[in-house]
Amino acid sequence: MKLIENWFSERYSDNLQLSFRVSDQLLSVKTDYQRIDVFQTYDFGKLLSIDGTVQLTEKDEFVYHEMITRMPYLYADSKPESALVIGGGDGGAAGELLKLGLKRIVNVEIDGQVVEVCRKHFPELASSFSKKNVELIIGDGIKYVETAKEKFHIIIIDSTDPVGPAEGLFDSKFYHNVAKILAPGGVVVTQSGSPFYQPKAIGMAQRGMKPAFEYVKSYTAFIPTYPSGFWSFTMAKNTPIKMRKDSVPAGQYFNMEIAESAFSLPEFVKKLIA
Amino acid sequence: MKLIENWFSERYSDNLQLSFRVSDQLLSVKTDYQRIDVFQTYDFGKLLSIDGTVQLTEKDEFVYHEMITRMPYLYADSKPESALVIGGGDGGAAGELLKLGLKRIVNVEIDGQVVEVCRKHFPELASSFSKKNVELIIGDGIKYVETAKEKFHIIIIDSTDPVGPAEGLFDSKFYHNVAKILAPGGVVVTQSGSPFYQPKAIGMAQRGMKPAFEYVKSYTAFIPTYPSGFWSFTMAKNTPIKMRKDSVPAGQYFNMEIAESAFSLPEFVKKLIA
Repeated sequence: MKLIENWFSERYSDNLQLSFRVSDQLLSVKTDYQRIDVFQTYDFGKLLSIDGTVQLTEKDEFVYHEMITRMPYLYADSKPESALVIGGGDGGAAGELLKLGLKRIVNVEIDGQVVEVCRKHFPELASSFSKKNVELIIGDGIKYVETAKEKFHIIIIDSTDPVGPAEGLFDSKFYHNVAKILAPGGVVVTQSGSPFYQPKAIGMAQRGMKPAFEYVKSYTAFIPTYPSGFWSFTMAKNTPIKMRKDSVPAGQYFNMEIAESAFSLPEFVKKLIA
Repeated sequence: MKLIENWFSERYSDNLQLSFRVSDQLLSVKTDYQRIDVFQTYDFGKLLSIDGTVQLTEKDEFVYHEMITRMPYLYADSKPESALVIGGGDGGAAGELLKLGLKRIVNVEIDGQVVEVCRKHFPELASSFSKKNVELIIGDGIKYVETAKEKFHIIIIDSTDPVGPAEGLFDSKFYHNVAKILAPGGVVVTQSGSPFYQPKAIGMAQRGMKPAFEYVKSYTAFIPTYPSGFWSFTMAKNTPIKMRKDSVPAGQYFNMEIAESAFSLPEFVKKLIA
């Protein structure tokens, strides 16, 4: 019997950390790109960490995945049929897009080992990669959009934070290429960090998108296991950002009220992108 | 030189905690009601803890205090002139009400030592108790509302969580007495906990208020140093809950968009109060 308590801690800064008590470390692997860990926690089910940063837990992944898919779905000018996901190696975004009835989803993940780990430890998410409407490409999303010819109604950047492999996903060169493969009236969305602990990320996303798109707007959601519990996403289009006359069923977080109110930013967040 | 790192940790459950690195413990006192600690943190300025639970930090108190005052201010049927605060021994709510131009504020705090601690360590908040429009009463808010005759346009329950001294502030007997001293068209607001980690608190607040008031509605805000970063407040009135044609200047969190969108609840929160 082990009496020592085991904790996984994410450091938000040198001076602040959130700690999860874990019953087991299920995996720890160093890939060509990053370190991947999977823990069995007591309160949040399994937890996936990349480079020490919580990517998802079984208990609250629904917020992130609902908000990064249903928002672009509803804000596309017409009912979307195809989507490109860059990153998203856990399969959660692709799975939500399937629920929304999309007919073609291309998912480009740079690190094949993320997919392998998630197939094993998060099969309820990664099983989306085995569905017939989903094409999984293990490759560099930045290079993919340079040469892709196919156009998509929704393009989702479901990346890690803008340091390391994901850094190039926040600059305007990348977004100019994204703009070329966005179908008319389509929507691009990226995660853009915690406005509280990563105040530069939302501005980086906006500055990356603005040279390539006519309209850019950020929205937020509450995600308990992400730093500060408060997360931002940034949406870009070449037509005005307004909700299509349509509706999608409520999820566990998302509903039609949230679909509108998520764009209301607290004053300190507005100032970050002013 | 001390090389050992000092951390203050708030346990959200047996299996989860948020930890702040601190340079100094400025105070630790056991009163008749609770244990009060003040820490100097690196990232959040001074931190006030009661019974091991973060009550406020200098860096993010603005969210809680703006949201517990400006919302009832804007949702009162006519421009409020008087307010009763129950709890709020740090003076933050009273201070925000003064900024809104209220002419009379009665603040009933049960634990005089909270006030003394805050006068010393959080003078920018507690100095509101020295202003001429504010009457501070050290006493039991539950008893105060049983016998009070004066009516108030805003009544704010700025209490600790519904365990210990604050428990009686969540039941309908208390709210029937509150209703008797609410001016016509006035608004009552209570903090109602983290919907994620204290899922019962928001329901307790709603069930406490509903027998005493015609209209009850919850709203939320993001507060990084409170459990899960996501907090709820519950508002009650005897006239419909709609915003008065008026506006107040933006704070650091609050603005006129937030004033409306804060009532949009994620689906899992709706289910807690269904």
